[in-house]
Amino acid sequence: MGLLAAGIAAGLAALATGIGNSLVISKTLEGMARQPELSGQLRSTMFIGVGLIEAVPIIAIVISFLLMAK
Amino acid sequence: MGLLAAGIAAGLAALATGIGNSLVISKTLEGMARQPELSGQLRSTMFIGVGLIEAVPIIAIVISFLLMAK
Amino acid sequence: MGLLAAGIAAGLAALATGIGNSLVISKTLEGMARQPELSGQLRSTMFIGVGLIEAVPIIAIVISFLLMAK
Amino acid sequence: MGLLAAGIAAGLAALATGIGNSLVISKTLEGMARQPELSGQLRSTMFIGVGLIEAVPIIAIVISFLLMAK
Amino acid sequence: MGLLAAGIAAGLAALATGIGNSLVISKTLEGMARQPELSGQLRSTMFIGVGLIEAVPIIAIVISFLLMAK
Amino acid sequence: MGLLAAGIAAGLAALATGIGNSLVISKTLEGMARQPELSGQLRSTMFIGVGLIEAVPIIAIVISFLLMAK
Amino acid sequence: MGLLAAGIAAGLAALATGIGNSLVISKTLEGMARQPELSGQLRSTMFIGVGLIEAVPIIAIVISFLLMAK
Amino acid sequence: MGLLAAGIAAGLAALATGIGNSLVISKTLEGMARQPELSGQLRSTMFIGVGLIEAVPIIAIVISFLLMAK
Amino acid sequence: MGLLAAGIAAGLAALATGIGNSLVISKTLEGMARQPELSGQLRSTMFIGVGLIEAVPIIAIVISFLLMAK
Amino acid sequence: MGLLAAGIAAGLAALATGIGNSLVISKTLEGMARQPELSGQLRSTMFIGVGLIEAVPIIAIVISFLLMAK
Amino acid sequence: MGLLAAGIAAGLAALATGIGNSLVISKTLEGMARQPELSGQLRSTMFIGVGLIEAVPIIAIVISFLLMAK
Amino acid sequence: MGLLAAGIAAGLAALATGIGNSLVISKTLEGMARQPELSGQLRSTMFIGVGLIEAVPIIAIVISFLLMAK
Amino acid sequence: MGLLAAGIAAGLAALATGIGNSLVISKTLEGMARQPELSGQLRSTMFIGVGLIEAVPIIAIVISFLLMAK
Amino acid sequence: MGLLAAGIAAGLAALATGIGNSLVISKTLEGMARQPELSGQLRSTMFIGVGLIEAVPIIAIVISFLLMAK
Repeated sequence: MGLLAAGIAAGLAALATGIGNSLVISKTLEGMARQPELSGQLRSTMFIGVGLIEAVPIIAIVISFLLMAK
Repeated sequence: MGLLAAGIAAGLAALATGIGNSLVISKTLEGMARQPELSGQLRSTMFIGVGLIEAVPIIAIVISFLLMAK
Repeated sequence: MGLLAAGIAAGLAALATGIGNSLVISKTLEGMARQPELSGQLRSTMFIGVGLIEAVPIIAIVISFLLMAK
Repeated sequence: MGLLAAGIAAGLAALATGIGNSLVISKTLEGMARQPELSGQLRSTMFIGVGLIEAVPIIAIVISFLLMAK
Repeated sequence: MGLLAAGIAAGLAALATGIGNSLVISKTLEGMARQPELSGQLRSTMFIGVGLIEAVPIIAIVISFLLMAK
Repeated sequence: MGLLAAGIAAGLAALATGIGNSLVISKTLEGMARQPELSGQLRSTMFIGVGLIEAVPIIAIVISFLLMAK
Repeated sequence: MGLLAAGIAAGLAALATGIGNSLVISKTLEGMARQPELSGQLRSTMFIGVGLIEAVPIIAIVISFLLMAK
Repeated sequence: MGLLAAGIAAGLAALATGIGNSLVISKTLEGMARQPELSGQLRSTMFIGVGLIEAVPIIAIVISFLLMAK
Repeated sequence: MGLLAAGIAAGLAALATGIGNSLVISKTLEGMARQPELSGQLRSTMFIGVGLIEAVPIIAIVISFLLMAK
Repeated sequence: MGLLAAGIAAGLAALATGIGNSLVISKTLEGMARQPELSGQLRSTMFIGVGLIEAVPIIAIVISFLLMAK
Repeated sequence: MGLLAAGIAAGLAALATGIGNSLVISKTLEGMARQPELSGQLRSTMFIGVGLIEAVPIIAIVISFLLMAK
Repeated sequence: MGLLAAGIAAGLAALATGIGNSLVISKTLEGMARQPELSGQLRSTMFIGVGLIEAVPIIAIVISFLLMAK
Repeated sequence: MGLLAAGIAAGLAALATGIGNSLVISKTLEGMARQPELSGQLRSTMFIGVGLIEAVPIIAIVISFLLMAK
Repeated sequence: MGLLAAGIAAGLAALATGIGNSLVISKTLEGMARQPELSGQLRSTMFIGVGLIEAVPIIAIVISFLLMAK
């Protein structure tokens, strides 16, 4: 049962970062195409955003490893 | 059963922060691209918002750890 | 069975605050980008709104802890 | 079986208030950003609305506690 | 089986009032922001509407209590 | 099995009136905000509509009571 | 098994009339708000439409009663 | 098993006529509100359409009765 | 098992004709409201279309009868 | 098991032709209402399209008959 | 188990060609209604497209026959 | 179990090519209707795109054959 | 169990490349129809994008082969 | 159970990269078609974005390999 749970948690974490990051990065690209002179500022905000989004999924990955180790 | 529950809770928490944060951050990027002079204010609101959004999922992560420890 | 229920309740609560808060905060950011002189009033309404939204999910978190303790 | 039901009821109640309140509060913020002189009236209507929306989910929370006590 | 049914009925009733009331109240707020002089009439219609929407979910709550008492 | 069926029927009936009534009442509010001089006529049509929508869900509630009595 | 089937049939019939009627009645309200001089004709068409929509769900309700009687 | 099948078939038939008829009738109401002089022609086409839509669901109702008789 | 299959096939066939016919007939009504002088031609195409749409669902109804006869 | 498969295959085939044909025929009606002088050409393309769409569902119907004969 | 798999594969293949072909053919009809002088070229591309879309579903039909033969 | 897996894999592969190819081909038709002088270039890109889309589903078909052979 | 997992992984990988590639290629076609002089650059970016999208699904295909070999 | 989990995790990871990458790359193509002189900058941001999106799914692939090795 723990192995199945590890698979579900890892899969949902992958889905979450896939959807979340792609929304943020595509908005950044849209903003850069509209106002090229802001691209530095937008990209630094993008890196902060990606870091914040990936925080909880990475903990879910850790949980997934712990579930496998049980 | 507890292990399966830990996996589900961690996965849903990851999904929640993935969707929630990406909506907030992409709105911030949109606002910054439209009005660059407000970027400091928008970014500070973004940090508050991300903190508020991640409060409950992180408790769900804690519950997930407790479920694994059972 | 109680452990599975705890996981489901915590996961749904996390999802609810993730979706709910992100809608409110992104609207606040949109309003601030459009009318910067109202940002104080909007942000205070945002804090009230986030508090109201998180009331029931936090009770669900409490229920989740009680279900684990059984 | 009662414990699983308690978890489902609490989770759905959290989801309901999460979606319902966020729609009402985001509309209030939108209205305040458009017409700042109406913000008192809109906010008082918002409090009434939040109270009406949370009535039934809170009864569901009560049912959830009763189901746990069985 | 009756306990599980009580949980499902209470949860769906909470979801129904959450979605239904929020649609009505957000439309009221939208109408008030557009035409402030009609706010009394709109708010009274809103109270009638909320009462009509909550009629059947509250019967479902009653059924939920009866199912628990079995 | 009859108890589970009673819960499902009551829950779906609550969901149906929740969605149905809210659509009708929000359209009425929209119409009243656009043409205040028609508000009497719109409100009377709203009451007829709410009555027609709630006819079948209330029979479903009756079926739900009968299923519980079995 | 027959009792569960009765619950499902009654619930789906309630959902069908809830969605179907609300679409027709909200269109009638929209048409009346746009052209008040046609309100008699629209309302009579609305009654015919509601009757036609409720024909099959009411047969489903009859089937639901027969399934309970088995 | 036959009783469960009867319930599913009757419920889906009710859902089908509910959605199908409401789309046709709401389009008729929209057309009548836009061009009142065509209301006779539109209404006669509506009756033909409702008849055609209800043909197969009524056969499904017949199948549902036959399944109950088994 | 054959009886359950008969119910599913009949229900899906009813759903298919309900959705399919309503789309075609509502487009016909829209076209007639826009160009009344083409109503004969549109209506004859509508009859051909309804006939073509109902071909396969009626075979599914036949299969459903055969499955019941087994 | 073969009977259940026959029901699912026939139902999905009915759904496929119902959705597919209705999209093509409604586009034809839309094109005819916009450009009546092209109605012959559009209708002949429509017949070819309906034939191509129904090719695979009819093979699925054949498979469904074969599954019943097993 | 092989028979159930044959039914699922055939049904999904029917659904795939139903959705896929209808999108392509309706776009062709739209293009022909807008630019009648391109109808030959569009129709020949349509035939190529329909052939390419039906390639894999027809292999799935073959697999479905092989699964039945097992 | 291998036979069921073969059916699922073949069905999903058929669905994937059905949706994927139809999107690409319908965009090609749209582009050709807007700019007929680019039709050669668009069509050659379409062939490359269809080939790239069908690469993985065809491997899934191969896996499906291998699963049947087990 | 390994065979079923192989089928699911291969099917989801096929779905992922089907949806992902078709979005990228249809955007390329749209860009080429709007600005024909950029077609070389767009097409080279398209090839890079298709390669990046197919990286993980192809690893999933490899996993699917490994699961079959077990 | 571990093998099934490996399949689910690999499939969801493939789906996540398929959806995520395609959104980012299609936005890049859209931006390049609108402003060709920014194509270098957009493409470099695209590579960073693709790398960030694929980070967690690739860990899920690793987990999937570990689950198979158990």
